[in-house]
Amino acid sequence: MELKVIAYARNGHTDKFGIPRQSREESPILTRIVFEPEFRVAEALRGIEGYSHLWLIWGFDKVESQKSRAESDSWSPTVRPPRLGGNKRMGVFATRSPFRPNPIGLSSVRLVGIEDGDLIVSGADVLDGTPIYDIKPYLSFSDSHEDAKNGFAEEHKDRRLEVDWYDNGLGLPRDTKDALTYLLAQDPRPGYQEDPEREYKMDYAGWNVTFTVHAQEVHVKKVQKIQK
Amino acid sequence: MELKVIAYARNGHTDKFGIPRQSREESPILTRIVFEPEFRVAEALRGIEGYSHLWLIWGFDKVESQKSRAESDSWSPTVRPPRLGGNKRMGVFATRSPFRPNPIGLSSVRLVGIEDGDLIVSGADVLDGTPIYDIKPYLSFSDSHEDAKNGFAEEHKDRRLEVDWYDNGLGLPRDTKDALTYLLAQDPRPGYQEDPEREYKMDYAGWNVTFTVHAQEVHVKKVQKIQK
Repeated sequence: MELKVIAYARNGHTDKFGIPRQSREESPILTRIVFEPEFRVAEALRGIEGYSHLWLIWGFDKVESQKSRAESDSWSPTVRPPRLGGNKRMGVFATRSPFRPNPIGLSSVRLVGIEDGDLIVSGADVLDGTPIYDIKPYLSFSDSHEDAKNGFAEEHKDRRLEVDWYDNGLGLPRDTKDALTYLLAQDPRPGYQEDPEREYKMDYAGWNVTFTVHAQEVHVKKVQKIQK
Repeated sequence: MELKVIAYARNGHTDKFGIPRQSREESPILTRIVFEPEFRVAEALRGIEGYSHLWLIWGFDKVESQKSRAESDSWSPTVRPPRLGGNKRMGVFATRSPFRPNPIGLSSVRLVGIEDGDLIVSGADVLDGTPIYDIKPYLSFSDSHEDAKNGFAEEHKDRRLEVDWYDNGLGLPRDTKDALTYLLAQDPRPGYQEDPEREYKMDYAGWNVTFTVHAQEVHVKKVQKIQK
């Protein structure tokens, strides 16, 4: 099957590093779903405002190593989920890894509003520029399984760090600071590296932050506006 | 993006008529996910048994009118959801209609087991022979929104009919009868036709049933084994 891009996601996630590993209800991160000209038809959204949540079906096309894999047409039956520290292999169909036979992503998001024909949603765990292939209403009686068993993902689901802001994040717009606090609290480090001296850098919405992680705390060392 | 078929769904739904409009937790209908030779790798399922639910991403490729639309490369911004009686138009992205720009289906299913390298799931609202493009674990902390607002689908979600079996469904295997009872109770009629005399026919798992619907009750008139 050949999929057509119907829209592109636009948000502050210009850097793959720091993107949440899954969409989460409580995320303050806004994403704008900008329809392609052919699909930019107000009628196609008629009735969507009655739903609080939507599904996005999208493509992992910016995942670098995925690209070469897709080109080489090979796939690996197992992957190393970052939740497990990156050193344990699980079956690809038991994970949400981007490195899958068909690089399709699935995210439930909260519908915030419609603006100039675009959808504004929160909680999308996608990179800026991600192609969207489908948008569906979320149906709680069909899609919600509150008590589902979460396999090996279960024990890591509520891991949250404290975030300590250098100089109180002076100079950051309020919503950017809130978004960064949310992203840093999730522990964006690859695997569970435990070097308290190690400095990490992350871009979000035109800002670059430098931070370290010590035990359960993120220390933001520096905040810089990215020069265009 | 070009998608590869990783598996095909095998179940008793040889007839489009009667397939549930959405996957449902309580469905007794079993579907076997039969992997294509390239993807038939036990390792790719490692860890999947820890999850109670999975996502299937699949193709509506047997939807006849969809085929011609796909070929003609056209799409319609609005569709007529059967829930609304088939006479009201809603935006395609506010529905789960198969007639969408990319004919991708999404179903959460219960994982029943692994058998000879195949997955056995229940609750898949898919036709026998449906191509599967991806299988993902269901993550309750990300995918479950118990209180989501269901738009225009809300008022129809719990509609259930009583099923009155002719001659107690004599001759039907027990699980086939249970499955048919479930399917008939959902009211498989197109739109809400209200002609108590009208006879409908539906195939499931090698059996053909003839029924009428009067008010809130389905009357099964005849059950026949389909001759091959």
